[in-house]
Amino acid sequence: MEELNKQLDFIIELDRLKGVYRQALVKSDKNRFENSAEHSWHISLTAQILHNYAIEKVDVSRVMSMLLIHDIVEIDAGDMFAFSNEAAHAEQEDKEIAAATRLFGLLPEEQFHTFNQLWLEFEAAETIDAKFAKAMDRILPLIQNMKNEGGSWARHKVKKSQVIKRNEYLEGLAPQLWSYVCQQIDLAVKNGWLQDA
Amino acid sequence: MEELNKQLDFIIELDRLKGVYRQALVKSDKNRFENSAEHSWHISLTAQILHNYAIEKVDVSRVMSMLLIHDIVEIDAGDMFAFSNEAAHAEQEDKEIAAATRLFGLLPEEQFHTFNQLWLEFEAAETIDAKFAKAMDRILPLIQNMKNEGGSWARHKVKKSQVIKRNEYLEGLAPQLWSYVCQQIDLAVKNGWLQDA
Repeated sequence: MEELNKQLDFIIELDRLKGVYRQALVKSDKNRFENSAEHSWHISLTAQILHNYAIEKVDVSRVMSMLLIHDIVEIDAGDMFAFSNEAAHAEQEDKEIAAATRLFGLLPEEQFHTFNQLWLEFEAAETIDAKFAKAMDRILPLIQNMKNEGGSWARHKVKKSQVIKRNEYLEGLAPQLWSYVCQQIDLAVKNGWLQDA
Repeated sequence: MEELNKQLDFIIELDRLKGVYRQALVKSDKNRFENSAEHSWHISLTAQILHNYAIEKVDVSRVMSMLLIHDIVEIDAGDMFAFSNEAAHAEQEDKEIAAATRLFGLLPEEQFHTFNQLWLEFEAAETIDAKFAKAMDRILPLIQNMKNEGGSWARHKVKKSQVIKRNEYLEGLAPQLWSYVCQQIDLAVKNGWLQDA
C-alpha cells in the first residue's frame, strides 16, 4: 500500500493547481481569471486537435502528457505573467526547479523520474515534442485574447514583437499555424489590442 | 484554411466547459464548486498515475484522450449529479448524444468521427480502456470526498450501496484499487459521511 499512498498524496496535492490563477480570462464564465488546471486541460486537447500541422513527426501522447503536467510546479512557484522581465523569469526558474523536485518527489521513485524528466524536456524545448507542446501553450492564449478584445495583451500593454517572439516555435515546425498566428497578430495591432513595436 | 477554422471554432467552444460546475468541491480553493474542465485534467493525470494497477493491458494514451473529452457534452447538456434518479439519467443521456453530435460536429469530418467514437466507447464502458477511464472518473470524487469530510456525499445523503455500485468497474480490473475503495467506503460510513444502506 505504500506505493499507492504516495500516488494518492500526489493526486490530492494536484487539487491545488485549481487555485492557481493566470492572467487569461474565461470569457464564457463571466470573464473570471483562468486557473492553471483548466488551462492544462484546454491545451492538451488543443495539441490533440492540431498536431497534424507539425511537419515533423510529433508523438501526440507524449505531448499531451507534457501539457498535463507542465504547470504543476506552479502549485509551489505560482504563475508568472508571460511578458514579465528577464530577472523575474530567472528567479521563477529557480523556484520551479525546486517545486518539481518537491512535487514530483511525492510519487514513487520511478514515476518521479518519468515526470521530472518529461517536465525538464518541456522546459528545455529542444525536442520536437517539447517544441510542439510549448507552441500549444502559447497559441491558445493568442486565440483567447483574439476572442476577448485583446484580453491580457490589452490590459498589460504588450508589444507585437513580444508576441511574435513567444510564438516563434511554430515558424519551422508548423508553417500553416505560424502563418495564422502572424495574421492574427497583425489584426490585433490594427484593432489596437497590441502595441505596434 | 477551412479545416483550421473549424478546429479553432471547436477549441474556442471548449472554453465553455470551464463554466460548467459539478457537485464536487475544490478544498484548496475556498471550497468552491469544481468545474468540468479542471476535473477532466485531474482524472486524465490520475489515469496516467494509476494505470499500472489494471491487471489487463490498458492503453493509457487512449484513456487520457477519453478522459480529456468525456465531459465536453456537458457544454450543451450540463452536469448531472452522479446519484440522481434513473429517469433523470435517461433524459440526460438523450441530451448528451445530441450534444456530442453538435459539438464534435464543429470539427472536420475525420476528427468528428474519431472524437465521437471515442466518446461513445467511453459511455458504453465495454472495452478495457473505457472501463478503466470510467473507474478513474469515479475514484477521484471518492478521494476528494474522503479529504473533505464527506463532501458531496454528506450534502446529498448518499448511501454506501450507491458508491459501491458506482465504483464496481475496479473490482475485476484493478483489485488493489478496489480494495482501497472498499476500505474508504467503510471508513466513510464509520465517520457518518455515507449512509449505511
